[in-house]
Amino acid sequence: MKVLIIGAAGMVGRKLISRITQAPEILGGSIEKLSLVDVIKPVAPQNLADIATCQAIDLSKVGTAEALIADRPDMIIHLAAIVSGEAEADFDKGYDVNMKGSYMLLEAIRAEGKKQPYKPRFIFASSIAVFGAPFPDKIGDEFFTTPLTSYGTQKAIVELLLSDYSRRDILDGIGIRLPTICIRPGKPNAAASGFFSNILREPLAGKEAILPVEDHVRHWFASPRSAVGYFTHAATLDLSLVGPRRNLMMPGLSATVGDEIAALERVAGPKITKLIKREPDATIRAIVDGWARDFSVKRALSLGFTAEKTFDEIIRVHIDDELGGKIGG
Amino acid sequence: MKVLIIGAAGMVGRKLISRITQAPEILGGSIEKLSLVDVIKPVAPQNLADIATCQAIDLSKVGTAEALIADRPDMIIHLAAIVSGEAEADFDKGYDVNMKGSYMLLEAIRAEGKKQPYKPRFIFASSIAVFGAPFPDKIGDEFFTTPLTSYGTQKAIVELLLSDYSRRDILDGIGIRLPTICIRPGKPNAAASGFFSNILREPLAGKEAILPVEDHVRHWFASPRSAVGYFTHAATLDLSLVGPRRNLMMPGLSATVGDEIAALERVAGPKITKLIKREPDATIRAIVDGWARDFSVKRALSLGFTAEKTFDEIIRVHIDDELGGKIGG
Repeated sequence: MKVLIIGAAGMVGRKLISRITQAPEILGGSIEKLSLVDVIKPVAPQNLADIATCQAIDLSKVGTAEALIADRPDMIIHLAAIVSGEAEADFDKGYDVNMKGSYMLLEAIRAEGKKQPYKPRFIFASSIAVFGAPFPDKIGDEFFTTPLTSYGTQKAIVELLLSDYSRRDILDGIGIRLPTICIRPGKPNAAASGFFSNILREPLAGKEAILPVEDHVRHWFASPRSAVGYFTHAATLDLSLVGPRRNLMMPGLSATVGDEIAALERVAGPKITKLIKREPDATIRAIVDGWARDFSVKRALSLGFTAEKTFDEIIRVHIDDELGGKIGG
Repeated sequence: MKVLIIGAAGMVGRKLISRITQAPEILGGSIEKLSLVDVIKPVAPQNLADIATCQAIDLSKVGTAEALIADRPDMIIHLAAIVSGEAEADFDKGYDVNMKGSYMLLEAIRAEGKKQPYKPRFIFASSIAVFGAPFPDKIGDEFFTTPLTSYGTQKAIVELLLSDYSRRDILDGIGIRLPTICIRPGKPNAAASGFFSNILREPLAGKEAILPVEDHVRHWFASPRSAVGYFTHAATLDLSLVGPRRNLMMPGLSATVGDEIAALERVAGPKITKLIKREPDATIRAIVDGWARDFSVKRALSLGFTAEKTFDEIIRVHIDDELGGKIGG
């Protein structure tokens, strides 16, 4: 099996590759070639060096998609995107990469299939951002997509294309709408959603963190490990079971900031939670008020997708996977 | 005010132009220039000859959109589309016109706005085809769009773009999801939905018509006069009232084939309804089973959009507007 991972240098991409390294059969078969591409050249894990090729690409450039598909990969995992804040700040860049780049990929697959039969699996990382407020308390599987960002719009458009190209037998696609990933490893970042991870990750490393919203703010979460699990599950799932509605909100945990802090205290003790400093920020609060709080994801659950059920689990995943089991820096 | 109507030679376009001819202020102001374009050259009504220009265009051709927008129309009514059956049969043509052609229009507006401030009203003819079965008995305003045709996919994509470009202040857009228009004037056509009109229009003209489905088949209808009304209302509506969710299913009448026939008998008598011949067709029945039966359109109603409330009214509109009041050919 030939596998192409686009966006392989990002957080989910690196964790997915690490999972493939641990369990090479996880995508449903033995991999003869693993193409890893991103806007910066990804790093291949050493024990996959014989099958992996790494390449820096610009998905928005005409010809890039054709070059990636020329090799006829059996499985394409498309994680690449200009993120929400940047796609909002740079209108052209967001549309060029997120919409047109993805469309050129789909079109390159269609062109390849005209030469000789070809129908790869196409797993697309979509986002909770396809939804836009106001929301019901629990968003169901049939709620409409009215994004309030250009990023969300671009994701929703690719979702529609992916469904139509699947229905047309050009590819076998599935769109994976990711919850907010928590705890994001790495350094605190300026993203408005950063604090959800910061208030756990920084104290667990013995550092202070700023909490800019009230404890009752609620959102939808899953760990990086769950995110990897969505893609490995999507790689092996019989997609005929998904039917024509190819885009699915993934399971997650609906929790408040207060739930996060209580779990942190249970797992790591009050000395750790004392490192959280409350500094309300009206701007961040206003942004967060536009985000989804809770979902009913019956379809994804019935198809076997899973996520954490408590914030204690989400925190323990981080301690195991990022801190080698050690709390407090 | 400069007005551009794209798709001006189609049924709704011609009726809209005829309405503008009768009531030149209907779009909310005096029209200094009326540009009428379509894939075949539209015909300008004589009493608008001094302000109207007519042109045959190919919307999918690079440069067409820029040429249309160079004149900076204040109001753009975009009715043009490769219809459902053709977009399904010719993948490239459907995407080229319906998706890329519309996108090039939006991009031409954005480019014009970069030269000097420009924010036209953009009224887009969308379709009931953005929805795909299975449906609830009544589809609400927040039901998701999972089209089962390429045509519906293309319409849903333009809807998303229109919302984002409106949110970004590039234009002031609204998407008008049309019910099935009944009674379509003209000759019987091969469209799977044709019989809904044929079984009324042909008998009213004294001719036989074939009914390929059972009497209990239910669908969502409005007259051509209502269709024109959606666009004239959208032309004058304060779109800030619509908010960020810019695409609206229009009011219509949920009725069965049996309701149609009963209304025809009430309006035109049993001699006319006897001209309907029942010839069940499993293929057409299967297609029709995938179509929406009923909607709750609270938002469109609250914004002042209207349609017929009985099939008797729909039939009388046809007798008045197409038959000069005369039944039976």
